[in-house]
Amino acid sequence: MSIYLRDIPLSQAQAIFQKALQDAGLWRVLGVEEIPLDEFAAGRILAEPVWASLSNPNYNASAMDGFAVRAQETEGALPSAPVTLPVGDHAKYVDTGDPLPEWANAVIPIENIEPLDTMGKIVVETRKPFAIRIRSAVTPWSYIRPLGEDIVATQLVLPAGKVLRPVDLGALAASGQICLKVVRKPHVAILPTGDELVPLGSVVRPGDIIEFNSCVLAAQVNEWGGQAHRFPISEDDFGIISQAVRDAASGNDLILLNAGASAGSEDFSAQVIEAMGSVLVHGVAVRPGHPVILGMIRSIDSKMIPIIGVPGYPVSAALTGEIFVEPLLARWEGRAPLQRPLVSATLTRKVNSPPGDDDYLRVTVAKVGEKILTAPLPRGAGMITSLVHADGVTIIPRGSQGLEAGSTVSVRLYHSAVEIENTIFAIGSHDLTLDLLAQYLANYDRRLTSVNVGSQGGLMALKRGEVHFAGSHLLDPTTGEYNLSYIRQYLPGVPVTVLGWVGRKQGLCVRKGNPKQIHSLQDLARPDVTFVNRQRGAGTRVLLDYHLAQMGIGAESVHGYQQEEYTHLAVAAAVSSGRADCGLGIAAAAEALDLDFIPLFDERYELVIPRVFLDSALLAPLFILAHDDGFRQAILALPGYDVSQMGVRITDIS
Amino acid sequence: MSIYLRDIPLSQAQAIFQKALQDAGLWRVLGVEEIPLDEFAAGRILAEPVWASLSNPNYNASAMDGFAVRAQETEGALPSAPVTLPVGDHAKYVDTGDPLPEWANAVIPIENIEPLDTMGKIVVETRKPFAIRIRSAVTPWSYIRPLGEDIVATQLVLPAGKVLRPVDLGALAASGQICLKVVRKPHVAILPTGDELVPLGSVVRPGDIIEFNSCVLAAQVNEWGGQAHRFPISEDDFGIISQAVRDAASGNDLILLNAGASAGSEDFSAQVIEAMGSVLVHGVAVRPGHPVILGMIRSIDSKMIPIIGVPGYPVSAALTGEIFVEPLLARWEGRAPLQRPLVSATLTRKVNSPPGDDDYLRVTVAKVGEKILTAPLPRGAGMITSLVHADGVTIIPRGSQGLEAGSTVSVRLYHSAVEIENTIFAIGSHDLTLDLLAQYLANYDRRLTSVNVGSQGGLMALKRGEVHFAGSHLLDPTTGEYNLSYIRQYLPGVPVTVLGWVGRKQGLCVRKGNPKQIHSLQDLARPDVTFVNRQRGAGTRVLLDYHLAQMGIGAESVHGYQQEEYTHLAVAAAVSSGRADCGLGIAAAAEALDLDFIPLFDERYELVIPRVFLDSALLAPLFILAHDDGFRQAILALPGYDVSQMGVRITDIS
Repeated sequence: MSIYLRDIPLSQAQAIFQKALQDAGLWRVLGVEEIPLDEFAAGRILAEPVWASLSNPNYNASAMDGFAVRAQETEGALPSAPVTLPVGDHAKYVDTGDPLPEWANAVIPIENIEPLDTMGKIVVETRKPFAIRIRSAVTPWSYIRPLGEDIVATQLVLPAGKVLRPVDLGALAASGQICLKVVRKPHVAILPTGDELVPLGSVVRPGDIIEFNSCVLAAQVNEWGGQAHRFPISEDDFGIISQAVRDAASGNDLILLNAGASAGSEDFSAQVIEAMGSVLVHGVAVRPGHPVILGMIRSIDSKMIPIIGVPGYPVSAALTGEIFVEPLLARWEGRAPLQRPLVSATLTRKVNSPPGDDDYLRVTVAKVGEKILTAPLPRGAGMITSLVHADGVTIIPRGSQGLEAGSTVSVRLYHSAVEIENTIFAIGSHDLTLDLLAQYLANYDRRLTSVNVGSQGGLMALKRGEVHFAGSHLLDPTTGEYNLSYIRQYLPGVPVTVLGWVGRKQGLCVRKGNPKQIHSLQDLARPDVTFVNRQRGAGTRVLLDYHLAQMGIGAESVHGYQQEEYTHLAVAAAVSSGRADCGLGIAAAAEALDLDFIPLFDERYELVIPRVFLDSALLAPLFILAHDDGFRQAILALPGYDVSQMGVRITDIS
Repeated sequence: MSIYLRDIPLSQAQAIFQKALQDAGLWRVLGVEEIPLDEFAAGRILAEPVWASLSNPNYNASAMDGFAVRAQETEGALPSAPVTLPVGDHAKYVDTGDPLPEWANAVIPIENIEPLDTMGKIVVETRKPFAIRIRSAVTPWSYIRPLGEDIVATQLVLPAGKVLRPVDLGALAASGQICLKVVRKPHVAILPTGDELVPLGSVVRPGDIIEFNSCVLAAQVNEWGGQAHRFPISEDDFGIISQAVRDAASGNDLILLNAGASAGSEDFSAQVIEAMGSVLVHGVAVRPGHPVILGMIRSIDSKMIPIIGVPGYPVSAALTGEIFVEPLLARWEGRAPLQRPLVSATLTRKVNSPPGDDDYLRVTVAKVGEKILTAPLPRGAGMITSLVHADGVTIIPRGSQGLEAGSTVSVRLYHSAVEIENTIFAIGSHDLTLDLLAQYLANYDRRLTSVNVGSQGGLMALKRGEVHFAGSHLLDPTTGEYNLSYIRQYLPGVPVTVLGWVGRKQGLCVRKGNPKQIHSLQDLARPDVTFVNRQRGAGTRVLLDYHLAQMGIGAESVHGYQQEEYTHLAVAAAVSSGRADCGLGIAAAAEALDLDFIPLFDERYELVIPRVFLDSALLAPLFILAHDDGFRQAILALPGYDVSQMGVRITDIS
């Protein structure tokens, strides 16, 4: 038996899978069950159209509190020539919603009658008088809700395939339904496999990977109307995995076998599937996620069960859910597949793409002024945060080698247009207070999306009209000023306001106890010291280069100068993991990763805000928070920060 | 004690309620609970921000299957000058995801090495050779996923208030969370009251109203993250209702007291609330839904519990949920209130509005060509189907007396933009096959929205570019032809195609057994016969008027000629309920309502389609269905129909 991993185009893989499901009689609604019509029916899907068995109202009902009468008996009534009708079978009191007496064909609202006693005198009790006097005629069927006004028995109430919302339940009840025929929920078994996996809550050692794909897949399946069943982790062993698949095959409609889908030494998925049925597809030209297996196995009771070998990287796993599992569940549930809203957006950065694959690029989306912008997120299949931060996905199709900055792309949105309109888009230098800001802005229904490209990159993006603000800490060595000279240089004629934000300490982050005895930038030139740098254009990089030049230290004599990271925390993580001995960064990042910190410089980190957004409702909470005690205290709890300039309008440049 | 019902503006009512909640310390997140991180956490809301306690990866991991090496030991390797490294602590096999040995700082993918045996010969087994030979150098940290590449311990993973999605669970697990602090679900008691109410499933007699508001409200509460508790129906009795409210007050955070909120004789809600606490607001200037009560009561254990008196009409009840309950739950759950996407649309019809109220107009929305159109649905508070059919709501603010046709309005959408783009918008004559068509189109992910304004109204709407098709059955008495002469007259220069649809029988619908012995249109002139008419512009009305004129019968001599209905079923319902003795309509409507039918005319009902939409993807399923056997059989099961012309392209007019 030989298993090949050969990527085929997505559309071809889907067609092969669908054909196999059709041949097995499984490309249809799975089954029907009857449930009571109550609040728990919300979210279920109608298996059959519902035709009204009752009209609503199901009788001619009074639309007002008043008296039911015969319209013809009111004819001729005038202010000067009132008509009097005895209460009984010429006039009968009815509350709103009461059925009309057989003989009546109109209602006179209570405020339009004069209640009379036996002597013809007006009385106070309006509901049970002896007679009523009226001073204007009514037309037939006035103030009546006729039978069937809302629903006529036999009419279509809701079509099959309708996902029931709360108001739909009302219409179903009003039309006489008591039970509902809904689509049976597909049962989906999720089988994690892998020696490296440990269950959530375990002590995690190097080499251990916390098993959470089954949690994500199960939550996806449940969200999409299925019923997920998570299995315990199986070891990488043909026999053990086979047994788990055999167990899962009874009582489930679909099996998701997570990982082992590649062609590595411990990748048994394809072998197991081949032994119990057939591998239809092994490898789909989709990125991330390409080592997908699509197969069909036979259960002990001889039923055909589709099985999907889901790749192990978390982004691949989640996208495999969206690409293969969701449409199958939609079919089984008789509903339309999920269609996320599309938006056209302008790409802020160039992206490369493998020409052989459909490339699912996770992106953030923001509306800056009238522009809808989209920025690519980290591409790696292991970057679960790229899905968390994604506002949507854009697909770079096979055959394309990538897209230029400024290209128009179509983004399938995960978030609503409203959420995107409430998004503050910051491009520029990274600071830990932006994380805190994101948290505090959430209380004002604002989302903060920050793209870390360094201070200079932020000002460039601002110039292109692509930001609501840019965080910047660019020191002008000749003046000692921050940012202003750079703004004048890079943004001539662009009206901006510089808002004071935080002062912070820059220094060297070293491992606890400073084992290499690093004390100043001078030590970076030592051959036994490895440095981790920030990317070109970062304020911290500018700071470093300035001081190295002052000291006459060439970049080539700094080991690791080429090793670039995009955030302070990433620099600290590199030091913490031993990838480098030191890096230049902020005190808070050092403390966060339990490193020692050698303070070297005080600097100012400011927000550069395009004047057009200064008074926008979108940014208003930013100015409130700049003066908010709770927020300032939270910042001061980080080491090395001062907030004395926070919220101060440093200068307006136009 | 006197209870006044006085409508105050919505914003004022909300402010009063919010103030009372603030004073009671209830305008904040209700509480926090800890739950395990598993698939059932999806949909819950984070009560606190989550900071990473673990990095992801939490060690330097190999990104490929290959050999871990020291990069510096590969320096100088060239195709012509290979470097050989002994396996052991100079080269070590690693699978993707394996941790790097302490001493290593790069990985060489397995396809780039030559595995050697002890004699220096290349071997087949690539994973456990004696040594490896390489022919190019690697740079440090090649093919490694560094610690913290995705998540660095201490960074913000997700902010408080985040509604957890499946992928978020993955990020939380990867960042070391095991349990989550989420917002406690608010408990909401729902108390239906009213002597006229009968529980779902009861035999329904005239005057009985099926109690389903509690089902709708409970489903709404659950959908909005609360936990609903439905109580049994209480009679209209002060003591009984008081006891139910007292019971509900222990263990619930909010009470919804359904109906009895008006000022009628049996409306006890305000009295009960006043006796147990205070009525803050009685009457809000919102339509439908104005007799809302907002109050605050004190439970036995002296807690303050907000209570809302929800009006009894189903549309009012559901809108009260959206307007008052949802924002309160959002506050209690620490999430942003639901914000439905807004769309600008052109109103197809004039609407009047009470100037004193914010008028919540339910509307359908469709995209016809480049125009986004919106048509008002029936306004009555009892029309639950108006919520079922609504694509959204537009609010006509207080102070406005209504809107002209052609006005631009802002619609809050219930359906997604994708659903609206898949909507076929038909304005014109009503036919029962349109219900069936809606059902069958659902299988093609198309929605059919049909607005019944009669044949002439449909052609007028087509002229204004407001329809995808118009159903029409206008007889030209001079030619005996259907539709063509009208199209030439009304739509000069508008290219359309007339598609054959159905032939059907028109005739008189009378009550079973024909008690009034009605046999022809002649009988409409009898003084003892009451007729129910179709609206002006309906094809059936044109037919009637033509034949009455032929017979010399004046409209004034037909009793009930002014009584207009908009659909065949509504005409049949009027006859069935005794509101009229007969009406002109189609056989199927008579059969649906169990009426007798006196056939008079054969007629053709056709679809008039603007040429621009003829080949659109949107309408494609219509042409497929016109030739679909299942669909045709379903139509033929209705009485009086023939489908011989269905799908025939009768004529193209340009």
